[in-house]
This record gives sequence, structure tokens and C-alpha cells, in this order.
Amino acid sequence: MIIDWWRQACRPLDLAARAEAEARQAQLTKPTGSLGQLEGVALALAALQGGRPDIRLPWIAVFAGDHGVVAEGVSAYPQEVTGQMLRNFVGGGAAISVLARQLDARLEVVDLGTAFPLEALPGVLHLNLGAGTGNFACEAAMSDAQLRLALQAGRDSLLRAKASGADLFIGGEMGIGNTSAASALACALLGLPARELVGPGTGLDAGGVARKAAVIARALALHGAFLGDPFEVLRRLGGFEIAALTGAYLAAAQEGVAVLVDGFICSVAALLAVRLNPACRDWLLFGHRGAEPGHRRVLDALAAQPLLDLGLRLGEGSGAALAVPLLRLACALHNQMATFAEAAVSDR
Amino acid sequence: MIIDWWRQACRPLDLAARAEAEARQAQLTKPTGSLGQLEGVALALAALQGGRPDIRLPWIAVFAGDHGVVAEGVSAYPQEVTGQMLRNFVGGGAAISVLARQLDARLEVVDLGTAFPLEALPGVLHLNLGAGTGNFACEAAMSDAQLRLALQAGRDSLLRAKASGADLFIGGEMGIGNTSAASALACALLGLPARELVGPGTGLDAGGVARKAAVIARALALHGAFLGDPFEVLRRLGGFEIAALTGAYLAAAQEGVAVLVDGFICSVAALLAVRLNPACRDWLLFGHRGAEPGHRRVLDALAAQPLLDLGLRLGEGSGAALAVPLLRLACALHNQMATFAEAAVSDR
Repeated sequence: MIIDWWRQACRPLDLAARAEAEARQAQLTKPTGSLGQLEGVALALAALQGGRPDIRLPWIAVFAGDHGVVAEGVSAYPQEVTGQMLRNFVGGGAAISVLARQLDARLEVVDLGTAFPLEALPGVLHLNLGAGTGNFACEAAMSDAQLRLALQAGRDSLLRAKASGADLFIGGEMGIGNTSAASALACALLGLPARELVGPGTGLDAGGVARKAAVIARALALHGAFLGDPFEVLRRLGGFEIAALTGAYLAAAQEGVAVLVDGFICSVAALLAVRLNPACRDWLLFGHRGAEPGHRRVLDALAAQPLLDLGLRLGEGSGAALAVPLLRLACALHNQMATFAEAAVSDR
Repeated sequence: MIIDWWRQACRPLDLAARAEAEARQAQLTKPTGSLGQLEGVALALAALQGGRPDIRLPWIAVFAGDHGVVAEGVSAYPQEVTGQMLRNFVGGGAAISVLARQLDARLEVVDLGTAFPLEALPGVLHLNLGAGTGNFACEAAMSDAQLRLALQAGRDSLLRAKASGADLFIGGEMGIGNTSAASALACALLGLPARELVGPGTGLDAGGVARKAAVIARALALHGAFLGDPFEVLRRLGGFEIAALTGAYLAAAQEGVAVLVDGFICSVAALLAVRLNPACRDWLLFGHRGAEPGHRRVLDALAAQPLLDLGLRLGEGSGAALAVPLLRLACALHNQMATFAEAAVSDR
């Protein structure tokens, strides 16, 4: 029997490096615990990176795909925007393009399949898995083959990141309608009704939110008999870009690359990764708590403590990118602060 | 009649620059509001800086002073630490030294008066206002002359920052016992009993917190008849470094330099500044919500929405410094993102 790649073992944490980091942290010239969450970040990165924590080259991969469920009127924006934003990502004018530049991060843009045909865009990797997913209110979003290709697309991105020397992986997403897919996935994984999770996405009004919740409730009823298995949940309710994120997170844990998870949609992809292979959880750090109401529920299910809470709801990986300087400063503090002995400062 | 300098007019906001920034922000290729708090930060900086927002040179001034109230056993650390940490600040090993280096910020260290005599430390400005303040549980913390000198010391630092071309002022503090002074000040300004505001500071246990609350309750009773006037509150219950922070914030608002306020002690200094001259409030941005329980009450009184909430309780200006990259990224996003027209992306 061949085990699917994503179920294979994740790399174990380096507990010796973590213990060494803990011992160092206890000697730094500050009251114990006074750097709050940043102390835990430095320790976690030490265990993931196997030594002094450091973020030199963050890799940001933005995965884009279209969603058949948009036919149900669940998004505030027209579906043409997915392709237009692909141009904007590589043109340097999107939020994540600006952030990648400021952070000296590598930005990779992967088009898994848009509803409207696109000419080949320089700088975009076009994978053509289909003209968007199927409408999950009526049918499965993906075929088995499409889902496997999308998971592998995420893994391939992570492998390129690792080969380039990246020491942090950030996944981002773009896809008109993808908060609907993510909400449906979260409902299925958490066993919650649509009305408890659905939010405005990029800007629906109250009527739009109610319509979106009704569409998702209908989809959950349609696929209800098949939602016990996370692979099948992802195939029926997911999206190309969400599956690519899931694949990238799983591969990161197997290959030993630390991950910084972005917002609601990425957190749902992370929850899928953890359901497919629970050991990958150790490799996931969380950048922010976004404005979408379902995000809090998904973060709670992951026992995640994100670094930022700024009311963001943009996607693209932007919330994780915004948290990168905190990771870097946590590492600098850990590595560069003097110890009580070095500075001749009295401890308690 | 001569008006004290701190009561003189603050610089008005540039509302035309703010309106221009709002118009630009509405055209950027993102859903309206999707960058959350960062959108407000960019608009606020545009109004304060009078044009495209930008943070090139943050100025970090750490003010240090000792506190007579330490005689009551209100701190987890010995008073020698204030002087030892002054050496550590200029030696490059303290948290704020590391952060200033990473941020390309200027770090200035001002010693207003320590309990133990110090030799002149290269890189430290020694002002010698006294061997620490008086014990506010028994007497006024400062004389009228000391308070005026401390306020002026903050103003002088701000004027040096402005002359150096700084476009953001961060004040930090160091002083064993200064959460006790800040808690007493907050109680007096907000009319709250000590038990509602007092916390562990750098690391008191429950017994220590109870003792600290009792000392502050006693001080509030002793000085109670004189707490209607913020100047007198500051003189009786404050500290040299807290007064310097207050003076720096007031001068920043008068001179037109944006301020990023650090944690509990700095927020109390900001509240004092606002009570002395309410118009200065516009010039204050807030870096983080710290772990000290009184901080939330003081932030609420200032209607402040800090950027970070990481459980920090270090002081030194560290929480504000950690928020500087968010300000810079907010500016970069505002200035560099493409508009819908530039990127040929469909708006809603």
C-alpha cells in the first residue's frame, strides 16, 4: 500500500536547540516573561530551525484560483478581479507586492485556474487545473485528480522555497468567492452551522451575508454524508488555492521549514493540514486574527495565538507578512541582548 | 501673566493632507477598510506630517530616574538596577538598544537622577535632578523646581529629536519602582481605588501586589486634598522620568512631531500631558497594550487603540519600538499600492 505523500512523517522539533534557547532567555537582561509572546516565538523558531532563531529570507507564495460557487452571488466583487489581481501582484502594485518588497521577501505567484482565460503573465506560474472549481452548492468543487494536483502545487512551491534557502514560508491566497469556500470547509471540519461562521468577506452587506449562509447550508446538506474525511471535505467544498496552501503547509512540516499562517482562508487550510496529518501543527506560527468572524473559531480549534489583531481582511498573505518584522525583532532580541552576567546587572 | 510653556498651543493637524490621503486610500487596489487599523494609521500620519506619511528616522529617548517609594518594598528588583541598566542601554545589550539598532532609530539615554551615585557614563546625559524622588507615601515626590526641570528635560529631548530630523518620537522609561508611581498617578487622574489598578510590575507576587496597593492607597489619602490639579498630581505622586515623558509629549504636539507612546508608564505620562493640555492628544499614537492591568484603564481614558497586544511588560520604550515596522509598512502600503485605475482592476 502506498501512503499519500501528505500523510508521511513530519520533521521532529529540535528539542535540544529549544532547551538551549530557554536557558539563554532566562539570562537576558529583562524581567522573566516581560517580552510576552515574543519570547515564545523565539523559542519556537529555535526548535524549528535547530539553532539560533533567524529570519533572513521569507518566501511568500500567493495561490490564486476561481470558485464556481460565485454563480450563487456570494461575493461583493466580479470574478474578473482574480485575473486582474494576478497582474497586479506581479506588477508590484498589490498590498502583498509592496510588503514583499519592504521585507526583502521572495514573492511567487501561482495561478491554479481562473474562470476567465488569461494570457500567460510574465512572473506568474500558470498551472491550469481548470476554469475555476465546480459550484459546491450543486456538485463537488474538485475532482480527485484536481485536488491531488493542487496539493502537489503547494508542495512544489514549498520545495522551491526550501531550495532557494527560505527560512520562513508564508502562503497567501486570491480568489473571488473564497471566503465562501473557507466558511463551508470550517463548518464541515468544526461541525458548526453556516450562520455561526459566515461573514462579509471582502464586503457583503447583511443581505449578502444571509444569502451566503443559505448557500453554504445547502452545500453542507448536499455533501453531508461525505464530510467525515478531511480529504473529501477539501475536495467537495474547497478550492484550488486552498488545497495548494494545505499542501504547502504539510510539505513545510515534512521538509522542516517554519510557516507563518495568514488570515481566515489560510487558517482553514492549516486546519485541513492538521486534520490530514496532525504532527504538522508544530510547524505553524500564526500571523494575525482577522476581521472575518469565522477566523476566531478556526484559530481556537488550532489552539493558535496569532501575533497581530488589526482588523485585517485583505488576504494575499498580507497579515502574515505584516507580522514578519515581529518575528525578526524577536530573533534579534533573543540573539543580541546581553545576559545579566555580561552586563553586570543584578537579577532578582 | 506668563503661561507655563506646556499650556501653550499645540500645532493643528493638516486636514488638507488628511483629506488627500483619504481620497487616495479609497482608490487603492483592495477592498475598502481591508487593511484595518493600518488605514487609520496612514491617515493619522498624513495629518500629522502634512503630506505623504513616512517614518524615516524614529527617535527613541529613554528617561531614567529612581523612586523614593521603593523604600516601601514595592519592587521585585533592587534599586541598583536603574544605574546598571543605564550602562546596558548605552552598551547595546538592553532590549531597547537592540530594537533601536534593528530599526535604524536614534537612541538617547537621559539620566534624571538615580538613588546611587553614578560616574559619568559615556553616551548618557546626566541631569542630576536629585538622588531619586521623595517617597510619595510620606511626602511629595518632587519639589516644584524639580518637576519643572523634569518637564523641560523631556522638552529638550524632543527639540533635539526635531533638530536631528526625527519624524517620530518614542519615549521610554527605566526606574525601579515606577509602576508604583504610575499606578498612583492613574488612580489620582481616573478617580479609581488602588486595588483596581495595581499590578505585578516587573514581577511581584500576590503578596507584593497587595503591599503595593496598600502603599498607594496610603499615598492617595495623604495627598488627597491636592489631587484636583494635574501639575500637582504629577509633582506629588510622579517621578522624574514620568515628568520628562509628559514634557516630551507636550513639546512634540507643540513642535509638530508625531509620537508613538509605549506601555503603562508612558501611557500615564500621556494622560498627564492630555490633562495639562488636551489638544496634544491628536499627536499621540499608541504602540501596544501591555500586561500591567492598569494599562487598559488608562488607554480607555485616552480613547487609544494600540497596535500590538503581545503581553509585554518590559518598558524602555520597547513596545512602541516593536510597533515601528507596522507604521512603516502602513506608510509603504499607502504610498506604493496601485490604484484601481493604474492596475486596471475592477472596483465593486
